[in-house]
Amino acid sequence: MKILESNPAQHAVGTQLLEQLHGGHTGEQLVASLKDVCPDFATMTIEWAFAGVMARPGLDLLTRQLLLIASCTTLGHAVPQLRAHIEAALTIGASREQITETILQLLFYAGGAATSNALRIAAEVYETK
Amino acid sequence: MKILESNPAQHAVGTQLLEQLHGGHTGEQLVASLKDVCPDFATMTIEWAFAGVMARPGLDLLTRQLLLIASCTTLGHAVPQLRAHIEAALTIGASREQITETILQLLFYAGGAATSNALRIAAEVYETK
Amino acid sequence: MKILESNPAQHAVGTQLLEQLHGGHTGEQLVASLKDVCPDFATMTIEWAFAGVMARPGLDLLTRQLLLIASCTTLGHAVPQLRAHIEAALTIGASREQITETILQLLFYAGGAATSNALRIAAEVYETK
Amino acid sequence: MKILESNPAQHAVGTQLLEQLHGGHTGEQLVASLKDVCPDFATMTIEWAFAGVMARPGLDLLTRQLLLIASCTTLGHAVPQLRAHIEAALTIGASREQITETILQLLFYAGGAATSNALRIAAEVYETK
Amino acid sequence: MKILESNPAQHAVGTQLLEQLHGGHTGEQLVASLKDVCPDFATMTIEWAFAGVMARPGLDLLTRQLLLIASCTTLGHAVPQLRAHIEAALTIGASREQITETILQLLFYAGGAATSNALRIAAEVYETK
Amino acid sequence: MKILESNPAQHAVGTQLLEQLHGGHTGEQLVASLKDVCPDFATMTIEWAFAGVMARPGLDLLTRQLLLIASCTTLGHAVPQLRAHIEAALTIGASREQITETILQLLFYAGGAATSNALRIAAEVYETK
Repeated sequence: MKILESNPAQHAVGTQLLEQLHGGHTGEQLVASLKDVCPDFATMTIEWAFAGVMARPGLDLLTRQLLLIASCTTLGHAVPQLRAHIEAALTIGASREQITETILQLLFYAGGAATSNALRIAAEVYETK
Repeated sequence: MKILESNPAQHAVGTQLLEQLHGGHTGEQLVASLKDVCPDFATMTIEWAFAGVMARPGLDLLTRQLLLIASCTTLGHAVPQLRAHIEAALTIGASREQITETILQLLFYAGGAATSNALRIAAEVYETK
Repeated sequence: MKILESNPAQHAVGTQLLEQLHGGHTGEQLVASLKDVCPDFATMTIEWAFAGVMARPGLDLLTRQLLLIASCTTLGHAVPQLRAHIEAALTIGASREQITETILQLLFYAGGAATSNALRIAAEVYETK
Repeated sequence: MKILESNPAQHAVGTQLLEQLHGGHTGEQLVASLKDVCPDFATMTIEWAFAGVMARPGLDLLTRQLLLIASCTTLGHAVPQLRAHIEAALTIGASREQITETILQLLFYAGGAATSNALRIAAEVYETK
Repeated sequence: MKILESNPAQHAVGTQLLEQLHGGHTGEQLVASLKDVCPDFATMTIEWAFAGVMARPGLDLLTRQLLLIASCTTLGHAVPQLRAHIEAALTIGASREQITETILQLLFYAGGAATSNALRIAAEVYETK
Repeated sequence: MKILESNPAQHAVGTQLLEQLHGGHTGEQLVASLKDVCPDFATMTIEWAFAGVMARPGLDLLTRQLLLIASCTTLGHAVPQLRAHIEAALTIGASREQITETILQLLFYAGGAATSNALRIAAEVYETK
């Protein structure tokens, strides 16, 4: 059911950022995959998460991607999202070393199992790039 | 019981980094508080987490602190560690805005409850600085 | 090893409720799949979780299913159980809108990754019904 | 730093709902406590979580409160939020039995420790009402 | 509301085990604290968790306590339960070294924050014994 | 990037223990799979997790494996690691009953979903042995 009133200005900002970060990759597919079952979730993602949070000043986009990689690694179960943010980090210029070091930095917080599983996902993404 | 054989070179690197990041603050107290109950845990923290992971090249120290703030926020229960890493980020030159934006960036991953609780801890730390 | 002494009255109540909610679907298969490796787990599920908790008065069955959908969405890793409770909610008359709104309500608690993954599981279940 | 452009219509809806559910209680204090450190977080809570999600049709407000109690119980660390939603459920007419049964229903998903801790918070709230 | 039909034989087994493991300590207080708000939760704890699971053959009681210490450490938020099971392990003859090694073993799974917080709780319990 | 200076004595101890516990099974493959993407992670696993923690006195190897099974079951998302530690426990002489009872003991802490999923993984491992 579509209820949320879209804000066209926010929608444009969010859509541009979604395209810049995730165009042609997992992140774009994740948002698209929900357009039927819950179209407002796609709108919330674009207008709230992208335009409302990700597009804020105060931290550069690359740092924000590394923070999301850190959060997804720590959650452990956010596997497609982790893949999406590793792809996005590479797309906007992160080196493989920066991404690998980001995950490794979490060894003593997310734990070795989450870190090990995240490194394997990173390796899979690196192979496709 | 003390079993772990310390590596003096790693110990020196880790101790210096612990002092630089957490000297006089929560992080130093957390490590010290375990010297009686499990002295090897303090050694592991200094030689493995600080000298072995945190001191690595590939990401600057400030980014590493922000990643740890992201991981602790996501865990939700790592309250003293979250406080320690917010203090350390400020100590090495992070602005309050960078820290606040780091936590806010996690709203759609760690969730609103974890984000809200982390922002309140940040506010408490800001008041003491 | 079978140790637990079954309570026939509780077993009958639990079995009837398991059949009503999960008959022919994922939930029934999950319970059955453990009869060899740990038959007492199946008994505990039937007599404790179904007869002892789910069959209690005070909340209707549909609300209880929505609560379990909320808990599984929040856990993130309880994927087969989430599928089972979405199926069960539909079986006892929940609308797709009620289930989708249940998951969406968790956006600011379970986080966007868990919510997004749960909505995709819901979409898969809707397609098979 | 205040960046987010507020939507006055959404702000009015969200503020009214926040007042209805949490006025004079923990939930209102939680939102207010963040107005200094991150004023946009308060705006996001009011316009996104309250006006954008909680005010949606498809599920009644009481069911939505019970779902949030379920999610906070499952998270384990969302203690002030759990208290806030138990208070809100009572405010809009939930019986103590409905709340207690909601928490008890999670025994086999959130686990006994989380359930036990949530029941004690419920007992504390009941004593103040 | 009291609904659950108690099984006197299971109740006797569970009460004896609760007394043996937790008599006079945190675990007994935790169960007692729920007798008013949800008396059936106390019954479930005694008859299901103690008589139905903890009293099973196949693993000795001390190993079972160490497993619960591992699970509570990993959860991170199960603080009163962690304290209760450390006390119970000491009561039935665990050495401090066994408990400390149990927690330390989790460093690469529960992560360093959870391990560090659990070691501090262990140190507090050791000081009172 | 390979940065960590290996300690040959620790490396020998850790490699021997890795081989003893996980030789020819999932655990060995998990470590090997990271040698390209992050060779230092493999070194950390061998020298820190195996030689530095697992090889410590104070608890026998079998108890340590059961503790790791408990932690992985509680995490919920550590699926390949759970499989690896069930295989390792069998390799060093654990009976199926000990492993099944270990997982079942967590029913009231890790919750029924995590316990149920772990029992199914155990059943899969038992079938291959």
